[in-house]
Amino acid sequence: MTTGTISKEALSGLSPREIRARIRDGRWTERAEGLAPGYAMANLTVIPQDAAFDFLTFCLRNPVPCPIIEVTDPGSPWVKRAARDADLRTDLGRYRVYRHGEPVDETDDISEHWRDDLVGFLLGCSYSFETALLDANVSLRHIEEKKIAPVYATRVPCTPAGRFSGPMMVSMRPIRRDQVVRAVQVTSRFPATHGAPVHIGDPSAIGIDDLDDVCYNTDRIEVRPDEVPVFWGCAFTAHAAAMKSKLDLLITHQSGHLLITDMLSEEIAAL
Amino acid sequence: MTTGTISKEALSGLSPREIRARIRDGRWTERAEGLAPGYAMANLTVIPQDAAFDFLTFCLRNPVPCPIIEVTDPGSPWVKRAARDADLRTDLGRYRVYRHGEPVDETDDISEHWRDDLVGFLLGCSYSFETALLDANVSLRHIEEKKIAPVYATRVPCTPAGRFSGPMMVSMRPIRRDQVVRAVQVTSRFPATHGAPVHIGDPSAIGIDDLDDVCYNTDRIEVRPDEVPVFWGCAFTAHAAAMKSKLDLLITHQSGHLLITDMLSEEIAAL
Repeated sequence: MTTGTISKEALSGLSPREIRARIRDGRWTERAEGLAPGYAMANLTVIPQDAAFDFLTFCLRNPVPCPIIEVTDPGSPWVKRAARDADLRTDLGRYRVYRHGEPVDETDDISEHWRDDLVGFLLGCSYSFETALLDANVSLRHIEEKKIAPVYATRVPCTPAGRFSGPMMVSMRPIRRDQVVRAVQVTSRFPATHGAPVHIGDPSAIGIDDLDDVCYNTDRIEVRPDEVPVFWGCAFTAHAAAMKSKLDLLITHQSGHLLITDMLSEEIAAL
Repeated sequence: MTTGTISKEALSGLSPREIRARIRDGRWTERAEGLAPGYAMANLTVIPQDAAFDFLTFCLRNPVPCPIIEVTDPGSPWVKRAARDADLRTDLGRYRVYRHGEPVDETDDISEHWRDDLVGFLLGCSYSFETALLDANVSLRHIEEKKIAPVYATRVPCTPAGRFSGPMMVSMRPIRRDQVVRAVQVTSRFPATHGAPVHIGDPSAIGIDDLDDVCYNTDRIEVRPDEVPVFWGCAFTAHAAAMKSKLDLLITHQSGHLLITDMLSEEIAAL
């Protein structure tokens, strides 16, 4: 373990693997957004093997909020394809640990919780398509305001699978009226990171009564008169379903502390 | 059970659901190609639940040959999303049953083999993208010659998962030299049915030494001087891996006797 933290500037220009090494050493403890521009990041859910088939089926049946990037071998904390030599126990900045649906720990290293029956699920994350939106000159005001895009629980039910069920969770970005079509086009190319919006315009149509009622410590953001609220599927859907099922052990990344993969978002674009 | 068979003409204009009812009744016993134009068809693999997580992971790790359309609930023969009220036991024209890797039955009804721990996997099928190629005026000579596109075992290994491993299987179509680029563009839109080719041009580059060495009773087809052999991933990859693992029970559709889904190929296109 190396001591002393590192600045964001010192991470610029480093490869995803080099950045993961600095997270593993405890030299970078902040959120991952803005690191390794152009590379896809992934949401983490770790559950016991006896629930893994049901959970995998749940993700497959709800591919927009839960796009699967990689599933690890039971008992192995090593990522094989998405991020070379990445260790799920140490290479994300911060984790939450739940037992029977209740939070029991927040930590930067889950080695002491690891078991030989655990399976890791990496799901796509909207940070990836945000880069593509910015590259297409679509304004993202939450980034300009240094906020986290708000996340909501909808009243749209996911297709259940075995013990897993629950509402679709969504993230919202206010998009300038004249850029909404371009935002749909750009994000449609990235199905592995939620793809096109699930809804445009009316929060109540998907069961969101109040845009101030955000989840997961995300930020409120005003929708201005020249903007439209646009909603995308969010992988917290998977966390929510896993929490609801009260598994004896569940480990997730903590909001914003995603795994930085070796895959460029463009590498996994649809076309 | 209704007696008497029905002609292909009598099926034209019927919905996928109506055609499935006639297959269920035994009134249509031939292969599915050409039925319900525009609708996606699916390859079937049925295995016991204790192998289902490994098999699902195998498919996810090899998405080009094994694109997942739907996974059924353990014990349930009913398809929910891809084909309304479809019964996996009766709604495909012909099945093969294997025990411990050995074929034990060929039948048009697997009800007597069904168990309450069986899980059905529906994977995408190249019949879907062939329609798109024809619509784009790309010549498919095996169809003109009323042949089944040849299938080969490559020496490209799949990414293994648990007990499942094996080579990628591919189908080959001779494509006119001046239409190869268009064939790549058209099939790229259909990742749920194998998507873009995996190889263009040199069979030996993917470990195929002899184009006459076809698998699964598919047909040989000549590659003419103005044509290029183009190879696409094939869902027999999943059957081959399942057979190799010598499960106590494995049921597959028989070559050409696919499930006709309610989903238009255009509905599940990428963009």
